[in-house]
Amino acid sequence: MKISDVGEFGLIDIIKENTLYHPENVVIGIGDDGAVYRTTPGWQQVTVIDTMVQDSHFIIGKTAYWYDVGFKSVASNLSDIAAMGAVPTQVVLSTALTPSMDVDDVVELYRGIKDICRAYEVNILGGDTVMSREGAVITVAAFGEIEAGKALRRSGAKEGDVVAVSHTVGDSSGGLDVLLQGHDGYESLKKAHQCPVPRIELGRLLVQYGCHSLNDISDGLASEANEIAKASGVELVIDGSAVPTSSELQEWAAESGKHLLNFVFNGGEDYELVFTMAPDDFKALQQAYPDVTPIGTVRAGDGRVLLQHDGKESVLLPKGWDHFERR
Amino acid sequence: MKISDVGEFGLIDIIKENTLYHPENVVIGIGDDGAVYRTTPGWQQVTVIDTMVQDSHFIIGKTAYWYDVGFKSVASNLSDIAAMGAVPTQVVLSTALTPSMDVDDVVELYRGIKDICRAYEVNILGGDTVMSREGAVITVAAFGEIEAGKALRRSGAKEGDVVAVSHTVGDSSGGLDVLLQGHDGYESLKKAHQCPVPRIELGRLLVQYGCHSLNDISDGLASEANEIAKASGVELVIDGSAVPTSSELQEWAAESGKHLLNFVFNGGEDYELVFTMAPDDFKALQQAYPDVTPIGTVRAGDGRVLLQHDGKESVLLPKGWDHFERR
Repeated sequence: MKISDVGEFGLIDIIKENTLYHPENVVIGIGDDGAVYRTTPGWQQVTVIDTMVQDSHFIIGKTAYWYDVGFKSVASNLSDIAAMGAVPTQVVLSTALTPSMDVDDVVELYRGIKDICRAYEVNILGGDTVMSREGAVITVAAFGEIEAGKALRRSGAKEGDVVAVSHTVGDSSGGLDVLLQGHDGYESLKKAHQCPVPRIELGRLLVQYGCHSLNDISDGLASEANEIAKASGVELVIDGSAVPTSSELQEWAAESGKHLLNFVFNGGEDYELVFTMAPDDFKALQQAYPDVTPIGTVRAGDGRVLLQHDGKESVLLPKGWDHFERR
Repeated sequence: MKISDVGEFGLIDIIKENTLYHPENVVIGIGDDGAVYRTTPGWQQVTVIDTMVQDSHFIIGKTAYWYDVGFKSVASNLSDIAAMGAVPTQVVLSTALTPSMDVDDVVELYRGIKDICRAYEVNILGGDTVMSREGAVITVAAFGEIEAGKALRRSGAKEGDVVAVSHTVGDSSGGLDVLLQGHDGYESLKKAHQCPVPRIELGRLLVQYGCHSLNDISDGLASEANEIAKASGVELVIDGSAVPTSSELQEWAAESGKHLLNFVFNGGEDYELVFTMAPDDFKALQQAYPDVTPIGTVRAGDGRVLLQHDGKESVLLPKGWDHFERR
């Protein structure tokens, strides 16, 4: 059954159930001109928006299934909320879909959207479904809240800070590489690419433990580190061998003949967090959240990132590590 | 110069200026992972989202110029905010554009977006620009605020209410008809289609004067009236000859040989308001805002809309007036 068989209103009926995970904050949900919701007194509001375009951000059957597209379209937004240190509360979404799309695929798309919203107790407040001529375009706007004045910017890095990242870096671009080659195995890399985990809990801890600057890794670690250095007016010095990578990524780098740091610095869509904070605060954070690794330090400077690698120190440009090869 | 010549970051540099019209409410604007803003204590938040797809919602050079697309993509959202009785405060937007699009056209698109945001003092808090393969897709999410508990739903119509509309109805679909035929003249119809006016001031007055139910006319008056009747569990009786129409629309109906009520009931994107309220409250409203016209009454019923026309009374279905012809 195609979308054109059920129409826009039929489609809305199919997807409108099970969308509120904190109904106590919702005054008016799906079904009126707009949604109305309550915010927490004394807290500030955070908003982000992000779009995924078929055959640009995902290739159905090759790099992702429809479930993944739904999941990731929300995950990338929740990651931006996490990168401000905020608690996600609501999403609204807009899907431009082709009339020939199978209704079962739409259901899968929304199953992915609902699963991640349920996992993080984020309300789906409404949306818009329109027809596109060619290929799906999924836009999610997400809202969150943070205690007044506590939002974590990328511009707060201070001389003497530790630079750190969460979990492992580069898995998503490794997974994309595996998927594009149609290679078997490497399931955790594929999952890192298809259903990334927004680090909301860590974002909240970073607020609590006095983090100075924070980005999520959506465009590759080289790009994100440069954003922090530039916005903060400091120099970040990163030890390339200190960046944590997964054993699967190390295996894939060896098997594919590509340099590990290529995935680490040039990749993207990891949705891990990169941040800087005072060394003592970082030690305290590690007690509460062990999956964070120091990868460098902040020193006085003019917005550059320096990479220590093989005993040398070289400038790491935002576009990334391109000494060996480019994908 | 094409988008592909300046790249995504070049594009952001071109469009990021002049985006805050109420900077005092913005804690963090464009340039971090998310935007942070303050809300008004005691008020509730309203959110809406809407998408326009090239060659589906607009045909460049035929039904719209890029300026219009930008203006209207925000207008349709502000109209939804108005239809809740709220004050618009912020927008975030996402544009999927083709690499071959001329940068001057992008500037025009954003000039339209900024002009309407400036007119209603709505902050542009951020956005996302991605590449699409074919045709532009513009998504706007808008936020507003309303005094707690005051949002106007479509479900509040009461027996004895007056049914009324703002200004004139059908101009937008008349304008679309003129544009699709490439016909000269009828400038106000064309403008109604290309740069519609969200009725924010009236929405606020409707809150003040005790309006019972409210929709904006985005899908045609027949559809909107049916939504109110169904959501409220009442019957709306509309006098077809009472619906205010512009002299240009009357002229175009005569010249094109199409029935006026076709544009009135089946058209859409008027972004006028249709609402119901007690007769005395309506009289008081008219003193404050004369451009409102009674077009019918609310009586006990089961969610239908009845149309009085040529001395007869017939059921008006959501899909609209199709007695004479369909476009």
